[in-house]
Amino acid sequence: MTTNRQWLVDASPRGRALELTDFKYNEAGVEPLGKGEVRVKVECLSFEPSQKGQIEVIAGYSSGTAIGDVMGARGIGEVVESNDPGLAVGKKVLGSLGWQELASIPGRSLQELPNDQFLTAHLGPLGAQGLTAYFGLLRIGQPEPGDTVVVSGAAGAVGSVVGQIARINGCRVIGTAGGPDKCAAVVNEFHFDAAIDYKNDNVKARLKEHCSNGVNVFFDNVGGPVLNDVLARIASHARVVICGGISRYEQESLPAGPANYFNVVFRQARIEGFLLSGYEREYPVALDRLKGWIESGELVYKEDIQEGFDNIPATLKRLFTGANFGKQLLKM
Amino acid sequence: MTTNRQWLVDASPRGRALELTDFKYNEAGVEPLGKGEVRVKVECLSFEPSQKGQIEVIAGYSSGTAIGDVMGARGIGEVVESNDPGLAVGKKVLGSLGWQELASIPGRSLQELPNDQFLTAHLGPLGAQGLTAYFGLLRIGQPEPGDTVVVSGAAGAVGSVVGQIARINGCRVIGTAGGPDKCAAVVNEFHFDAAIDYKNDNVKARLKEHCSNGVNVFFDNVGGPVLNDVLARIASHARVVICGGISRYEQESLPAGPANYFNVVFRQARIEGFLLSGYEREYPVALDRLKGWIESGELVYKEDIQEGFDNIPATLKRLFTGANFGKQLLKM
Repeated sequence: MTTNRQWLVDASPRGRALELTDFKYNEAGVEPLGKGEVRVKVECLSFEPSQKGQIEVIAGYSSGTAIGDVMGARGIGEVVESNDPGLAVGKKVLGSLGWQELASIPGRSLQELPNDQFLTAHLGPLGAQGLTAYFGLLRIGQPEPGDTVVVSGAAGAVGSVVGQIARINGCRVIGTAGGPDKCAAVVNEFHFDAAIDYKNDNVKARLKEHCSNGVNVFFDNVGGPVLNDVLARIASHARVVICGGISRYEQESLPAGPANYFNVVFRQARIEGFLLSGYEREYPVALDRLKGWIESGELVYKEDIQEGFDNIPATLKRLFTGANFGKQLLKM
Repeated sequence: MTTNRQWLVDASPRGRALELTDFKYNEAGVEPLGKGEVRVKVECLSFEPSQKGQIEVIAGYSSGTAIGDVMGARGIGEVVESNDPGLAVGKKVLGSLGWQELASIPGRSLQELPNDQFLTAHLGPLGAQGLTAYFGLLRIGQPEPGDTVVVSGAAGAVGSVVGQIARINGCRVIGTAGGPDKCAAVVNEFHFDAAIDYKNDNVKARLKEHCSNGVNVFFDNVGGPVLNDVLARIASHARVVICGGISRYEQESLPAGPANYFNVVFRQARIEGFLLSGYEREYPVALDRLKGWIESGELVYKEDIQEGFDNIPATLKRLFTGANFGKQLLKM
């Protein structure tokens, strides 16, 4: 292979919806490796809502990918050439490989993976999304057995794991998701106690029905009206974890804040933002526990696997139209 | 005295501004005392924004005062008749005396006060407002020496104490207040490092100037646009204490929530509601410390003393027009 096919960032979607034309096809040459570098053949890419933020360059959220750069993305691949004595050809690795066929990258920036049936799980429940669910729920949400936990985006890669960890911890778990298929999966596959379809149900009425003693923990992946409706039903000393706000990403301007925020006073409650950074030293214990739950069948995950280099930009767009169902991946 | 002049609640101001006509003058007879009751001649009444909430009957915030009842209020008075062997005639007491000249009330519901120069301070910095400032700032805000602390309503009974406690704890303190006179007092009398006049200054620009490294703690007594502007400038791991929201009390409907709330994610910050209930066992230590700071001159307080029974309803209204300057009291 003497050319490396790539997708470059061509425009910033700041303040508007993501478009396929925000990316530009490119063919690059393959340069000799530098000292300590390896060449990785990209096999599988991971897609996350924060990738839009990455090219919007919102204050401090991400270091950003500049226009003209290869679009940044985490992925899994195989080492096909190595200048790193610690990383042999043939090894499976995970890292910031980007939207391209071949990544030339320092070996020390890569995580070596065991080549087993959990390979792609390292991009989901055994990766950043599983860790986000784990620390966001347990450290910020602090669920107690018997608590009522509500999770928005419950069919998603983070939300589905949050709900299952809450259930493992003895909580009643209610999820919100868009459409009857996702709601069915939330209950039947991820074993939530109930699901609320924000596209078709009366969310306020269903929350009242399912959370008659109030909501002790709300894990919000979505923002917008669901956050406001849940704030109206928080219990005394409730914990609201703000993890993401995909409903924000497609807006031209900041959406209105949650008018019911003042309920935190009446309920002596808190709203707290969560980012994964800062928990690095605790990853090994968390990953051990997550893997144990996957092996025992207590933690189920779902992958939405698209295929083909040409479909990479369209696959990112799926996240913002709600088309994906499970962790969004693409196999090259 | 054979009649007891009173102000009764005549209408609920829910969803609108408070009006003088929400209260009705009444003359009641003076009944014999029940067992354990005392008769208190009301000398000084305390006024708080939450008194509007008390007659609006917002969910759970207060047990409420019904239409036709004597308007509820805390006050200080002297025992003029006693059926409580533990509380002699002539003692100064503090309790829920209401808007009336004579309160007949169980002796055990009253707090006996030392008759010294700090008498009215028990309705301010040595009372619920001082305790609110103390626990709200220290427990929820958790200021560290060197932190930048912003306080809204900084000229008020709670805000002025919050800022002074923050300064005692080694913080830089910036206050917001309405108008040049209040801002001058915030700096010159309460010794904040700076004041921002939300009526005349560009709040965003002044916050940027005074909080160049971000806001570590925001103690919000006001809500509304100031909250939103401060959220735009919070530092990493900031703590936002929501204590009151006087800007809410005069609205017909819920004002918009803070659109910048999502900044808690980027900053791994939290917004937490504070009510005084739950800290009762720790009052003695807190009151000892507050009194010590008053005696040493480190904690200064200001009282706005109106006079006369006829002016009681108009004195409550002063809180909502920003007319008061310092803890609002009325001497009968």
